[in-house]
Amino acid sequence: MPPTASPTKVSDARRRSSARPGKVGLRDADATRQAILMAATEEFASSGLAGARVDRIAERATINKRMLYYYFGNKESLFLAVLEKAYRDIRDAERVLELPQSDPVDAIRKLVAFTWNYHLSHPEFLRLLNSENLRKAQLLKKSREIRAIHSPFVDMIDGVLQRGRQAGVFRAGVDPVQLYISIAALSCFYLSNRFTLSTIFGRDLLGAREQAERLGHMTDVVLGYLIRD
Amino acid sequence: MPPTASPTKVSDARRRSSARPGKVGLRDADATRQAILMAATEEFASSGLAGARVDRIAERATINKRMLYYYFGNKESLFLAVLEKAYRDIRDAERVLELPQSDPVDAIRKLVAFTWNYHLSHPEFLRLLNSENLRKAQLLKKSREIRAIHSPFVDMIDGVLQRGRQAGVFRAGVDPVQLYISIAALSCFYLSNRFTLSTIFGRDLLGAREQAERLGHMTDVVLGYLIRD
Repeated sequence: MPPTASPTKVSDARRRSSARPGKVGLRDADATRQAILMAATEEFASSGLAGARVDRIAERATINKRMLYYYFGNKESLFLAVLEKAYRDIRDAERVLELPQSDPVDAIRKLVAFTWNYHLSHPEFLRLLNSENLRKAQLLKKSREIRAIHSPFVDMIDGVLQRGRQAGVFRAGVDPVQLYISIAALSCFYLSNRFTLSTIFGRDLLGAREQAERLGHMTDVVLGYLIRD
Repeated sequence: MPPTASPTKVSDARRRSSARPGKVGLRDADATRQAILMAATEEFASSGLAGARVDRIAERATINKRMLYYYFGNKESLFLAVLEKAYRDIRDAERVLELPQSDPVDAIRKLVAFTWNYHLSHPEFLRLLNSENLRKAQLLKKSREIRAIHSPFVDMIDGVLQRGRQAGVFRAGVDPVQLYISIAALSCFYLSNRFTLSTIFGRDLLGAREQAERLGHMTDVVLGYLIRD
């Protein structure tokens, strides 16, 4: 059982969890975990692993620190759980695109637009990845699920490429991992580096017109590469 | 005149500068500035602006701190000088490619390979840019020379695109700034995120074979987009 939280710091849902056992208790435990993960995502994204403070995460999640340690062990394990959740979230969101059921050209078009919009609306994901890369992915390497999350994702892209090739539309010999890294690169580098790029090129990279132009350009680059005329 | 450095902390070249005036003194002043910029580049790349310590920069450059302040004012101005030098260095190195004198397809091929190799061998440049973007380019925006450095660079790429288009080889309507951001993105994102990407895809992204494959893929993507069949 989790330690009892201080009543003044606990939401109604979580207060009920110590009173009612069984199914409701399990649901509340899950709600508590989710609340901690959300608070931790914000804190890690803004301060990185070293700068993040467990006190602030507990306060944001309106739980006490003992409960946080009960659920996640320590700050490092919590950071890994945040990273794993962030990857699960983007891969889950991609599945909604139904790429395996789409025409190959449409599928690539949707994947490029999705990648752009997802990173545009989830700057915290880019900051978490940045932070973990500065640490050479030491924590992510310990994940027992991250490969399993990505293996079906690569297969899904490979399936689109194969269908496009069989239809005589796409070029042969495209590596799905290289292609996906390039699609992510075209969006992520532009967004992560928009402040220096806007400055050196004297352009507002996130103006409404500039956003539409970027998405158009990225789509042209990827399809220009894939489609055999 | 710069303040006299403590003799125990000063290299021979810089010790001479307080003894001999005139041209040698000017040359030595320049050598001192370069030594400070090199030491500062290392320190800022490894610790960021906030974490960098002027003491450590002075020590690495074997000068005293007063001389550093004499030449660069304060830590922020020194960081801006480091950024400006980093941009000048990459733009100077690109000029050696002689893109305006090259066949358009060759010019793009050379620019992609150069961008890849430059970032591979200058990880400190990517770290400086990362650091400055986390600060929303607050310092770079104050630069009086950064736009002037990039304006001829954009013109140079535009010239290659126009020649390629006139020869009927390249597609029309390509924005040189979008294209260059994409070329940089394909290299830089791959390199900056190689630790998380290697982990999620279960691949060593910097193995000898993988490096060659990446360069091949990026070249195919960019030329696949540009060349009209």
